Amino acid sequence: MATTNPAATSPIQPDWNTIVAAHERIRPRIHRTPVLTSESMNALAGADLFFKCENLQKTGSFKIRGATNAIFSLSDEEARRGVATHSSGNHAAAVACAAGWRGIPAWIVMPKNAPKVKCRAVESYGGKITFCEPNVSSRSETAARILAETGAVLVHPYDDDRIIAGQSTAAKELMEEVPDLEAVLCPVSGGGLLSGSCLGAKGIRDDVRVFGCEPERADDAYRSLKVGALQPLETTDTIADGLRATLAPRTFAILRQQVDGILLVSEEEIVATMKLVWERMKIVIEPSSAVALAPLLKKEGIEQVSGRAGKRARVGIILSGGNVELKW
Amino acid sequence: MATTNPAATSPIQPDWNTIVAAHERIRPRIHRTPVLTSESMNALAGADLFFKCENLQKTGSFKIRGATNAIFSLSDEEARRGVATHSSGNHAAAVACAAGWRGIPAWIVMPKNAPKVKCRAVESYGGKITFCEPNVSSRSETAARILAETGAVLVHPYDDDRIIAGQSTAAKELMEEVPDLEAVLCPVSGGGLLSGSCLGAKGIRDDVRVFGCEPERADDAYRSLKVGALQPLETTDTIADGLRATLAPRTFAILRQQVDGILLVSEEEIVATMKLVWERMKIVIEPSSAVALAPLLKKEGIEQVSGRAGKRARVGIILSGGNVELKW
Repeated sequence: MATTNPAATSPIQPDWNTIVAAHERIRPRIHRTPVLTSESMNALAGADLFFKCENLQKTGSFKIRGATNAIFSLSDEEARRGVATHSSGNHAAAVACAAGWRGIPAWIVMPKNAPKVKCRAVESYGGKITFCEPNVSSRSETAARILAETGAVLVHPYDDDRIIAGQSTAAKELMEEVPDLEAVLCPVSGGGLLSGSCLGAKGIRDDVRVFGCEPERADDAYRSLKVGALQPLETTDTIADGLRATLAPRTFAILRQQVDGILLVSEEEIVATMKLVWERMKIVIEPSSAVALAPLLKKEGIEQVSGRAGKRARVGIILSGGNVELKW
Repeated sequence: MATTNPAATSPIQPDWNTIVAAHERIRPRIHRTPVLTSESMNALAGADLFFKCENLQKTGSFKIRGATNAIFSLSDEEARRGVATHSSGNHAAAVACAAGWRGIPAWIVMPKNAPKVKCRAVESYGGKITFCEPNVSSRSETAARILAETGAVLVHPYDDDRIIAGQSTAAKELMEEVPDLEAVLCPVSGGGLLSGSCLGAKGIRDDVRVFGCEPERADDAYRSLKVGALQPLETTDTIADGLRATLAPRTFAILRQQVDGILLVSEEEIVATMKLVWERMKIVIEPSSAVALAPLLKKEGIEQVSGRAGKRARVGIILSGGNVELKW
């Protein structure tokens, strides 16, 4: 396997050595998730697709990679203080779980309207929940208060090199298993997974192209990269509840240098794609995961990710998570 | 890996060489399905569980293993005649699919009340459906007529050495990947998967114990093995629609020599277990698959499969399929 380091000639952090160290650190604790293929999905896309199943990861999403790397990077002195974070979803469960593995407390600030299933997951891992109002200012104030009261170490969901290095390992594993992919797609929200995927995939083979996928209704990454400056999100009215955050300075800086494009999808495409994956592939994915496949079910999407005309594309897709309330 | 052959000293067919040849024959065409683990399922069972995910197999079930072996074992002259079978479910789709790979016609007799989703699957693989009344005599008569009219070769769902050898490869792969299992569990209906699993697992390590799992409401295997003679099934009123067939002479003969026991589960246990797997493991399984896990969520089930007292059991479970109508 190639171990070239595209970051060696640029100031981008985390660098390749940091990513390799992160992977070694988390490897004994996480699943090496399977890469699945599906002839019926290939037929629909007109391309050869390779699905990295982070929905089958511990805690049901890739977030455990970054959280485990961050929490097991803490010094013993830092760890004794415990950790804190704010999240309404998968990062909250991941931090609670990884903190449990290290045997330290985790304080989680969650909006009071967070899905009950996600609150139960945090509690089941031993996380201590403090509820806030469902808006940015209440969340910031509550998190600041918890940090002050407890002295805990903040584990930010994405604006943190340790988190980005951890998330990079999903794309790294995918490229190690299927080295000749032309492109890798993943969803983008705060940008931890996407910036990590750029570093992890291109660290294995520097000419692989990496694309972020985003709901049209939460398209701040698309607009920010087009304008060249961070753009706010006016609304977050998308079914992809994992994709309602916005890029941070750290993730934006990586994406400006490394990402090959952002692909947008409609709400209808997200829902139809999610159902298709459940039915054809027999795996449970959440709407955010479907966002990374939906572009490939459109002719223009396949054309955009296919480097060479006339050649059937080989494309990797990171299915980011599977935490969705089931209706019976 | 050990390649002992427990069948060498007994007249049991298919023998180990036949199984190895079947595996080589089908390997290029099927998925080597992943073996998943789940800490939350381990905690619930109080044992270390290893799930062989045949729900993620091509056509959505293990049935493609036997069908592919049977159809690619045909001579060119036999193949030219095409194949025929009767099945309301996964075997029908598997035969249609494997026949498509070989480029030969497949005639499928299905009861007129078969689920529409299964009829669509057969048609999507190019199978030619003939509907019959939903009873044994109509099915037999219709199948006999189709065989006479077309000259096709019958590919029986389970009373066939080529089918049993093909189905044995799932347990063989599981034991190759986790050689120190104490027990392997799978569902039992006609007995193709269970008799194959006995041969495939014990061929790798002859002291592994193999158990069949069966709905209380379709318990002919349990009763037949107890009595020592094939017993009929009075009713097939179980949600596990893949488990409504009864043992055949060939599968019964293997099970009498090789199986270590049959575990029964209630309808309520099947449904609760199916939901649990969807929620915790993020994979779609059909009720028949849940039958092979449900016994392990009961204290007496774990005790029955655990060979040594006081030692935490390591148990393999074959999740047989994922073909279930999704409700949205």
